Amino acid sequence: MSGEDAPAQQQNAVDQKQETKPAEEPKAEPPKTESAPAAAAEADATPAAATEKVPEEETFTYRALVLTGHGGYDKVKLQVKKGKPTLKAGEVLVRVKACGLNFADLMARQGLYDRMPSPPVTLGMECSGLVEAVGDKVMVLNRFGLWQEVAVVPASHTFLIPEGMSFEEAAALPVNYITAYMMLFDFGNLRPNQSVLVHAAAGGVGIAATQLCKTVKDVTVFGTASASKHETISQGGVEHPIDYRTKDYVEEVRKISPKGMDIILDPLGGSDTHKAYNLLKPMGKLITYGTANMLAGQKKNLLAVAKNWYHQFSIHTLSLIQGNKSVCGFHLGYLDGEMELISQAMNTILDLYKEGKVKPHIDSTWHMEQVGDAMRKMQERNNIGKVILTTEPMPEEEKKEEPKKEDKKDDKKKDDKKKDDKKKDDGKKEEKKDDKKKEEPKKEEPKKEEEKKEEAKKEEK
Amino acid sequence: MSGEDAPAQQQNAVDQKQETKPAEEPKAEPPKTESAPAAAAEADATPAAATEKVPEEETFTYRALVLTGHGGYDKVKLQVKKGKPTLKAGEVLVRVKACGLNFADLMARQGLYDRMPSPPVTLGMECSGLVEAVGDKVMVLNRFGLWQEVAVVPASHTFLIPEGMSFEEAAALPVNYITAYMMLFDFGNLRPNQSVLVHAAAGGVGIAATQLCKTVKDVTVFGTASASKHETISQGGVEHPIDYRTKDYVEEVRKISPKGMDIILDPLGGSDTHKAYNLLKPMGKLITYGTANMLAGQKKNLLAVAKNWYHQFSIHTLSLIQGNKSVCGFHLGYLDGEMELISQAMNTILDLYKEGKVKPHIDSTWHMEQVGDAMRKMQERNNIGKVILTTEPMPEEEKKEEPKKEDKKDDKKKDDKKKDDKKKDDGKKEEKKDDKKKEEPKKEEPKKEEEKKEEAKKEEK
Repeated sequence: MSGEDAPAQQQNAVDQKQETKPAEEPKAEPPKTESAPAAAAEADATPAAATEKVPEEETFTYRALVLTGHGGYDKVKLQVKKGKPTLKAGEVLVRVKACGLNFADLMARQGLYDRMPSPPVTLGMECSGLVEAVGDKVMVLNRFGLWQEVAVVPASHTFLIPEGMSFEEAAALPVNYITAYMMLFDFGNLRPNQSVLVHAAAGGVGIAATQLCKTVKDVTVFGTASASKHETISQGGVEHPIDYRTKDYVEEVRKISPKGMDIILDPLGGSDTHKAYNLLKPMGKLITYGTANMLAGQKKNLLAVAKNWYHQFSIHTLSLIQGNKSVCGFHLGYLDGEMELISQAMNTILDLYKEGKVKPHIDSTWHMEQVGDAMRKMQERNNIGKVILTTEPMPEEEKKEEPKKEDKKDDKKKDDKKKDDKKKDDGKKEEKKDDKKKEEPKKEEPKKEEEKKEEAKKEEK
Repeated sequence: MSGEDAPAQQQNAVDQKQETKPAEEPKAEPPKTESAPAAAAEADATPAAATEKVPEEETFTYRALVLTGHGGYDKVKLQVKKGKPTLKAGEVLVRVKACGLNFADLMARQGLYDRMPSPPVTLGMECSGLVEAVGDKVMVLNRFGLWQEVAVVPASHTFLIPEGMSFEEAAALPVNYITAYMMLFDFGNLRPNQSVLVHAAAGGVGIAATQLCKTVKDVTVFGTASASKHETISQGGVEHPIDYRTKDYVEEVRKISPKGMDIILDPLGGSDTHKAYNLLKPMGKLITYGTANMLAGQKKNLLAVAKNWYHQFSIHTLSLIQGNKSVCGFHLGYLDGEMELISQAMNTILDLYKEGKVKPHIDSTWHMEQVGDAMRKMQERNNIGKVILTTEPMPEEEKKEEPKKEDKKDDKKKDDKKKDDKKKDDGKKEEKKDDKKKEEPKKEEPKKEEEKKEEAKKEEK
């Protein structure tokens, strides 16, 4: 695949939060890449149009977000690719409208996710768009390669978007909802009257999990999130929001439910997995699905990785037997051979959507040029719900560091939150300092760095 | 509790298998301890009868199987206890008719089960009998203390025996069926079209698990057992019986199901748990519920214990995440605070019994005097289904080493099996030799022994 850097995508090392309230703006006209003749040219049903293909294959260009190396936000570059991709049997070409950001993308950027080929590689595990040949509106799930205007994927990886669902919602749904669904209903075997602890309850998976919990009778949800997000998650169904930044969440849970939890969803890893294990009731299930604790700072933070590795949870069967406990691991990225299981889950989720029981919560939508800021927002846990990229071209007058649009009603809250975060984010500051140190001169202690990389590699396995 | 040894219960160190076919014999008259006035005396509804209590409390005696110390079969003694036990609020007195043997009893005898008080203590986790006060036929589940003619238990630990179920069946049901049920339907979340590997498929839990699997549409059961038991387990519903003594069961499973299993029930521990983990499909569940591999020989076999400890399965969360796997531990003995969960499971199981979908398979029934041989039969894996003790008095003319009764139809098979076992039991012989060595002079290397005991203790925790 050929590609060259698009007009400079400015990346600031200094933290630039969104200081101004972005104006709600109308959707731009359809992106220029969306041309009717192109769609027709590829439709299986119109082979006569194939003669038009030759010239198009030469002039065809599309933008893609390419990971050019492991590291900070600036390693993801907006590039222009040339030449229309050709299709193999069973594949479809999708004109991408919107893409979802996931933790795995952030991990991949830092070189902490082994399901991604080596850079250069186009990021992105989920998107929504139009199947060029037939015009179907679909959402797509893939191991990588979806953050671009045109994506070629196996037809089996696409799912029809139900009526009334926007492209943004459709890009927000697959990874978070399938993850939450399979954890709660396959491993977790969630049943009425049970209690569930959802970490990062304001995140994409957290909000999906809360909504799915509410589809079962009398399930009580405990959710951790910083205080500024409590109103939103309470409205979403979390009965017991807990501010993990100012309180010991283990104590808080025990106060309300002395026996502990039936199910705990743990995206954190490290010492939080130990705490979760100890918080399980008999017959309780701990489902760990990430190592977010490893993500501290823009680039691979070797201290955070080492700490996570050191504290990594390891369990003996005798402890499981004597505790009557279950420990499960889940990651959709490692489940890509299991499209049947995934489709089953997806169909159930779409039914729940149609019944109005689940609905993705969009935090913010960003232009492709703003991918660095979008990633930063997610990585610094400033989002409530899903962070989305749109392939719509970015108007000249728009400032680069602003999201394309955010829910207006959230603006006030966000300002409060920022203040709040400043006050309470003591623990994080320490990590950030550490992070900055790492970003500066790279050459101090080069040997030690290499040793640590070895460790990190082991951990990935 | 006072107690003295009953007339010598002969224990042979040498392996005495049942060489003759025991005649099917009619039930003896009700045990002498079952007296109507006694029952009336304790009924809450007849306080007037209380005056009769005083003389009875002095003369009342009953037999109990007491673990007098950790070690071989001879450590379980038939003793006579004096004095009628008094009841606290919420307790009932049960006239015990039949008792079930479980692996935990064998482990306890060897000092490998930490849910049992120190000897002397009456063994037994399950029994059936009559509630003296009201005459209800019940089955009972308790942490220990049920292998005796009279047992005082919390009323909440008793379950009414449904019509048509014999006392023997009722004594065979609770531990095995609740264990199998909770593993398959709570941790395992068994669903149609799934595959289940049942180790020790001819054992009590194995037969219960197979029957329960068959209550779900199109579930395929793979079962390990020695060849002589294959006919029985096939009839019981095992589609793929595997002789683990002559074949590599991992290879056999992969031949039939290359992707592996959805659920694996593992009572073995040690290296078999590793094999099970590797045999799981994505989203597969490994449920480990014992360490039968530790039980080699009559007494605590330090080599087997150390081996099991050395090979004990320990799992990191990253491996679980990348494999999308679940590892669960189950042991009913550690779940005794959860009577609500247990009752729910029991009620469902009793409904299935009434519908004719499950039915305990009794291997053999033994008199209390024969407890050593009964334990031996189970420990040496010569049983098919449940080994039961009866409290009926043992007729003089009966040979001690014979079971009270066994299914006649099985006799032919058993003879075959014995031959079979002799041929194929090479691996076991080695362990037995080792065992005999340990039984002889205890004083060689007393220090090393103590060190090893330390290790064994750690393992129990």
